[in-house]
Amino acid sequence: MRRHNIQLDKNGRLRHFLTIEGLNRKLLVEILDTAESFSGVTAQSIKKVPLLRGKTIVNLFFEASTRTRTTFELAAKRLSADVLNINVAASATSKGESLLDTLHNLQAMHCDMFVVRHDRSGAAHFIAQHVAPHISVINAGDGRHAHPTQAMLDMFTIRRHKKDFAPLNIAIVGDILHSRVARSQIHALTTLGVNEVRVIGPETLMPADVEALGVHVHHDLREGLRDVDVVITLRLQHERMRGALLPSEHEYFRLYGLTEEKLALAKPDVIVMHPGPINRGVEIDSAVADGTRSVILEQVTHGIAVRMAIMSMAMSSRANLEGEII
Amino acid sequence: MRRHNIQLDKNGRLRHFLTIEGLNRKLLVEILDTAESFSGVTAQSIKKVPLLRGKTIVNLFFEASTRTRTTFELAAKRLSADVLNINVAASATSKGESLLDTLHNLQAMHCDMFVVRHDRSGAAHFIAQHVAPHISVINAGDGRHAHPTQAMLDMFTIRRHKKDFAPLNIAIVGDILHSRVARSQIHALTTLGVNEVRVIGPETLMPADVEALGVHVHHDLREGLRDVDVVITLRLQHERMRGALLPSEHEYFRLYGLTEEKLALAKPDVIVMHPGPINRGVEIDSAVADGTRSVILEQVTHGIAVRMAIMSMAMSSRANLEGEII
Amino acid sequence: MRRHNIQLDKNGRLRHFLTIEGLNRKLLVEILDTAESFSGVTAQSIKKVPLLRGKTIVNLFFEASTRTRTTFELAAKRLSADVLNINVAASATSKGESLLDTLHNLQAMHCDMFVVRHDRSGAAHFIAQHVAPHISVINAGDGRHAHPTQAMLDMFTIRRHKKDFAPLNIAIVGDILHSRVARSQIHALTTLGVNEVRVIGPETLMPADVEALGVHVHHDLREGLRDVDVVITLRLQHERMRGALLPSEHEYFRLYGLTEEKLALAKPDVIVMHPGPINRGVEIDSAVADGTRSVILEQVTHGIAVRMAIMSMAMSSRANLEGEII
Repeated sequence: MRRHNIQLDKNGRLRHFLTIEGLNRKLLVEILDTAESFSGVTAQSIKKVPLLRGKTIVNLFFEASTRTRTTFELAAKRLSADVLNINVAASATSKGESLLDTLHNLQAMHCDMFVVRHDRSGAAHFIAQHVAPHISVINAGDGRHAHPTQAMLDMFTIRRHKKDFAPLNIAIVGDILHSRVARSQIHALTTLGVNEVRVIGPETLMPADVEALGVHVHHDLREGLRDVDVVITLRLQHERMRGALLPSEHEYFRLYGLTEEKLALAKPDVIVMHPGPINRGVEIDSAVADGTRSVILEQVTHGIAVRMAIMSMAMSSRANLEGEII
Repeated sequence: MRRHNIQLDKNGRLRHFLTIEGLNRKLLVEILDTAESFSGVTAQSIKKVPLLRGKTIVNLFFEASTRTRTTFELAAKRLSADVLNINVAASATSKGESLLDTLHNLQAMHCDMFVVRHDRSGAAHFIAQHVAPHISVINAGDGRHAHPTQAMLDMFTIRRHKKDFAPLNIAIVGDILHSRVARSQIHALTTLGVNEVRVIGPETLMPADVEALGVHVHHDLREGLRDVDVVITLRLQHERMRGALLPSEHEYFRLYGLTEEKLALAKPDVIVMHPGPINRGVEIDSAVADGTRSVILEQVTHGIAVRMAIMSMAMSSRANLEGEII
Repeated sequence: MRRHNIQLDKNGRLRHFLTIEGLNRKLLVEILDTAESFSGVTAQSIKKVPLLRGKTIVNLFFEASTRTRTTFELAAKRLSADVLNINVAASATSKGESLLDTLHNLQAMHCDMFVVRHDRSGAAHFIAQHVAPHISVINAGDGRHAHPTQAMLDMFTIRRHKKDFAPLNIAIVGDILHSRVARSQIHALTTLGVNEVRVIGPETLMPADVEALGVHVHHDLREGLRDVDVVITLRLQHERMRGALLPSEHEYFRLYGLTEEKLALAKPDVIVMHPGPINRGVEIDSAVADGTRSVILEQVTHGIAVRMAIMSMAMSSRANLEGEII
């Protein structure tokens, strides 16, 4: 359990944001409420607040992702922070410098926050364990482990449409096995106390121990969609399609692709979500992705406000440390 | 004709800036006058105005061009906007996401303006047709079609030196066939009502229908330069030199390279322009490029003010839409 | 001597910062004192001063260096300047544009300062000789010639710990031959009037004429370290290790690697410095790099304040020119 406490300061406030696991409902709701207030900022004419003026936020990407980097860069700039984009693969480590030396150098430059993306599970935790007290670490996706800001923007989108989490039945469809998004969503949904979380996908893409997370497993999409309030479709990574885990892209779509016809089995006011980018005609039919039930682009919009909330909360928990910084 | 109206809002104000074609003289003059006021900003000690503070401008480059990207980035920053540089080739589309999905995502993030560079003619129009009402699109060069901000900075430079367009004879020299710059310049010059536009170049680099644009065609440089007020030399793309369209670089320079000796056939107060980057000794002699008649670096300077003008005009036409944005 | 004067304006103030050579003690002390005042800025909660607001600083890197680029970018942003990062290898020159044309274009855009990194010695001088009067050039490392901002941050770190330069004995250890850092440090230390500068390294990595710079040469590390106040360990470039100049990495460490045991020969309050990035177990043992004598990360911290000082001094010497700019 100690592993999760690293995210909180001694007053229980958010210091790092690494995983949903181990955070309580009160804190998740605080994130959603704070994001609600930033949601207004991004819609107004001057989309900027001076909250993090003079702070330096480093996008430390060990795995390329223009899309995710862009959302964090926008969130940081709208908080008036200075942003440094560092593609680590292409820089220091190619000179043989160790990861820790790179980190120590950046924190010696008085950077305030590292937004970390890495293809190895646990990388953000490792970095959080080794940074100075004045640095916050935000996990922007680590291996198959977690993508907690994505999960929180999904929660924000669900709350906007459904108000209360308690009565909801929610289905997550696709490659659960390799999905850091699914893992974070499951933790968030169970912590927020939804009625039922279902995971739906072929046996080859389902983790062995998934029921231990408090979800119900379905291998039949039609059965799993019955009476759900929310369907979250996961992106099918191209490497899985080419691999031995799946028969064919076409067969996958036939069995697990979300179509209007299958969606009719869900509740009439069901909403459809997807973390993007979409593979049209693989995990989701274009008619559904662009249809009236889809809230996929709203997710993108809310992603900015939710990241602004998490960044500003993590930064403000350090405010009482400022005096100690050399 | 409908195709051009997409650039204007219902009050006839600039909403997108995609091509000079279809814009009237009054609007072009308004751009030049607005640029004149920004020209002062870029020369003062603090080169910044708060006009676009809190706006997000995305440089969406599907074709690499550090030079053009830099001018737009500088113009945006001097208007106090936040700038995102996105090299699309390297990002989302490599994950199989469609262009439209990339656009829809960026606009869901409440970006305000896309500056688009693409190697396919019509790309900026296509994008403008598909963006939300709160987004403006600026064409930073699309295939062989148009490069309208370049044409406007050329007009600005000409007006600075010649005051009135009406009496001017203007020669455009070089590869007219492949030049988006020439196409936009011809539209701008005829709209602004110059006396005569001449295009000069070898038959193999001249579009078949070019006279329909209202220009006079010359294949002999000396003949074409006689009594002109302005000579615009075009960059000869390296791929043309290696291709079958030209005998040799040396032969091209002999026939179409601008030298002091040939320039003597023009009016005594002729000015020499070039969109850059220059191939010295190919389309222009160094003595001319660096000589007293050259205004090539002034063009670069004016490029910032003209782009600030176009960006701020396009943004302000949307001001009355702000209330409608979610 | 004329070669150095290019760095100063007619009032003897810093206009460019290209090399330590030819700068007098008074000016170096002024840089250190100015950096001292900025040192407070980078430690406070809002790490930003409006000194260079509305100025445009271009990181013009002909040689990739994320680390050095990052320090200049941070320094510029904390002075509130706008920053353009241009990787020249990847841009204009690949279109065949000459270096001078690239420079002339950037200065036509009213950029105010070029931070230049180049793998050829003299590149920053060459550029400084060719820029307009309103542009300042800062050398961020040119070939084997100089890395003067690194040397000044080293001086700043030494002064923080030792107060007075006069009584100090300082050893620089490693590949003196190929090191622009060592060259700049030697000039700075002799100008600031330390008691003795020693250079320590194998014969194959020692310049022939090094004693002319006013240093003592040692080939035996133990002998050279005796009674020194400061040890500066240089990075051993990987290409040297693979080359014919050295027997083996292991052998190099045995002879010239800094260990706790060898460090015991220095004064008890010795400090250990390194310009980074570190090759652990090659030029320095991890126990020393991370030990109580190491001030390596302090160097990184001070690097921001020192670069802020140099940038703002160079910019303010131009203040009286502003009126003349078109």
